[in-house]
Amino acid sequence: MNWWLDTCKQPSESARQLATERQLQLTKPTGSLSELENIAILLASLQDNPRPNIDKPWITIFAGDHGVMDENISAYPQAVTRQMLQNFASGGACIAVIAKEYHATLQVIDCGSVGDVYDYAGVEQHCIAQGTANFSKQVAMTEEQCIQAMNLGCESVEKALENGASIYVAGEMGIGNTCSASAIACFLLNEPAEKLTGIGTGIREEQLIHKKNIIDQALALHKNYVENDAFKALCAVGGLEIAAMTGAYIRCAQLGLAMVIDGFISSVSALVAVRLNPEVRQWMLFGHQSAEYGHQRILAELHATPLLKLNLRLGEGSGAGASLGLIKLACSLHNNMATFAEAAVIGEKV
Amino acid sequence: MNWWLDTCKQPSESARQLATERQLQLTKPTGSLSELENIAILLASLQDNPRPNIDKPWITIFAGDHGVMDENISAYPQAVTRQMLQNFASGGACIAVIAKEYHATLQVIDCGSVGDVYDYAGVEQHCIAQGTANFSKQVAMTEEQCIQAMNLGCESVEKALENGASIYVAGEMGIGNTCSASAIACFLLNEPAEKLTGIGTGIREEQLIHKKNIIDQALALHKNYVENDAFKALCAVGGLEIAAMTGAYIRCAQLGLAMVIDGFISSVSALVAVRLNPEVRQWMLFGHQSAEYGHQRILAELHATPLLKLNLRLGEGSGAGASLGLIKLACSLHNNMATFAEAAVIGEKV
Repeated sequence: MNWWLDTCKQPSESARQLATERQLQLTKPTGSLSELENIAILLASLQDNPRPNIDKPWITIFAGDHGVMDENISAYPQAVTRQMLQNFASGGACIAVIAKEYHATLQVIDCGSVGDVYDYAGVEQHCIAQGTANFSKQVAMTEEQCIQAMNLGCESVEKALENGASIYVAGEMGIGNTCSASAIACFLLNEPAEKLTGIGTGIREEQLIHKKNIIDQALALHKNYVENDAFKALCAVGGLEIAAMTGAYIRCAQLGLAMVIDGFISSVSALVAVRLNPEVRQWMLFGHQSAEYGHQRILAELHATPLLKLNLRLGEGSGAGASLGLIKLACSLHNNMATFAEAAVIGEKV
Repeated sequence: MNWWLDTCKQPSESARQLATERQLQLTKPTGSLSELENIAILLASLQDNPRPNIDKPWITIFAGDHGVMDENISAYPQAVTRQMLQNFASGGACIAVIAKEYHATLQVIDCGSVGDVYDYAGVEQHCIAQGTANFSKQVAMTEEQCIQAMNLGCESVEKALENGASIYVAGEMGIGNTCSASAIACFLLNEPAEKLTGIGTGIREEQLIHKKNIIDQALALHKNYVENDAFKALCAVGGLEIAAMTGAYIRCAQLGLAMVIDGFISSVSALVAVRLNPEVRQWMLFGHQSAEYGHQRILAELHATPLLKLNLRLGEGSGAGASLGLIKLACSLHNNMATFAEAAVIGEKV
């Protein structure tokens, strides 16, 4: 039944120990590589390998449209979701360039975009609906639809593992989805829209006020249904792509695949995942702190400090993708630096 | 005579314009790649190329020993400088692994380490002295020695350019050199040791207090000689490798080669360079904010916000080196993302 409640794999304590001991032997002042040491040690425990690597990164973009777009809450038109799907597949989008840069496999899944029949090579079509319903008027997804979307995430992770993936990144595309993510976050943190709503792709002040009003209306409308249940919050105000990411994150933790969380929307999906199944948290690395208002609050709730802070606010998994280079470097340093003994360097302090 | 006072090359305004226009056409919300956009645009102007790249990074490590080591101001013994020189050349040191990761040429120059005759393949020996003199008793370098060291930096940059370098990183090795860098910074910013002295490779509290006392003594001893002259501050309390980096930075700006500044010591060298020749500043990118106390203050003086903040405190150019992956990614995104027209994506807001 509810597969997402199944237990998660446990990271390897012995690999963590071995990696920690190795770091102490490398030719550098103790602790001087700080975050890069921490990443290597964490990955060692997640990969059950004292010499971790991310030679085969896997990136999946989940796309979906949002009924709440009827309320004029975004800077860009809904048609952009479909257009960007094609742009992912043809290699012109940001995340496609990042995937190429880091030799990652890029999977693109349409969970439910709005529009006519299409055929873009490289886009896997699994449309559950023509976008969600307008959550300011009714629930965004039925529970059945939400489960279908979570299953898409689950299957993506299983496919990644079948293909030997060493680390997993989920990204999203869906015009209007910061509105949905903010609404979910409000339910999870029991806050009004004011505290967790930002400009997304770049709306102006008046439109931001309007966006917050729409979210507050939805919070009032769905309050009795949601009743502090993270899954119901996802159904009420979530998105197909957001539910898919939540499913993917949980499956990563159950099957023991390290994942990198991206920006605001991705972190909200991650928070839903952790609320549904708290052990998921330990399989998460955090790539980037986004410029989107509210992200910092979500990160604090997840006790997370991302590797990068570049003020990106693009989505598509771009922040997590940009961090792959550093994660790869952390592994290279861990695996390839000489030990004090190998290099005949004095390792003790005076 | 004083070549370091010669004018610097001017970055290209037209390449900056073209790169800025291109960024506005790429398939992403306006400004959403933020720092990665800024880097690409800055590099375009520095390389006079609207499609910048860092295909051939060049890293030079300058090494030198410090007479002030007689005062017990470091966590590690002086012999480590020599041992690390060999570790750079044999590929086991952090910066050697980074250089390999980013396909950079690694040059290693001994500007003046202490010890017997040696022969390490890959280390260029240009020893000006067996380390500096103990600056708590006398000037660290004669003006002649300081100029010789700056010339080593100058020649390194010329060699990098002859070899087609597209970006330049200088790093340092010299046990005791945070003590020297702090003392220089105190002279440049007119502050006592308390404000600009940290734990370096990891000394304890008592030793830190002692280190600050040694610096304050040196500031009093050399005050009349230095008299707010950055070059004289470098002679009085600097290091051979620090002077070499200063020379390298100035030469980069004169010949028009973009450079990435590393952590505390590197930033102090950069500040000396900018004080000697203010136009040097515009050729600088900043890789990493170090954990060393005082670095933030130096960065503020240089109006610099580094790309990374990973709490590294290793030296060797490791922070700047670690940022090369992001700089490369910024170029890839700039050059390889599709424009709205190419991808048939709507670029106007609603």
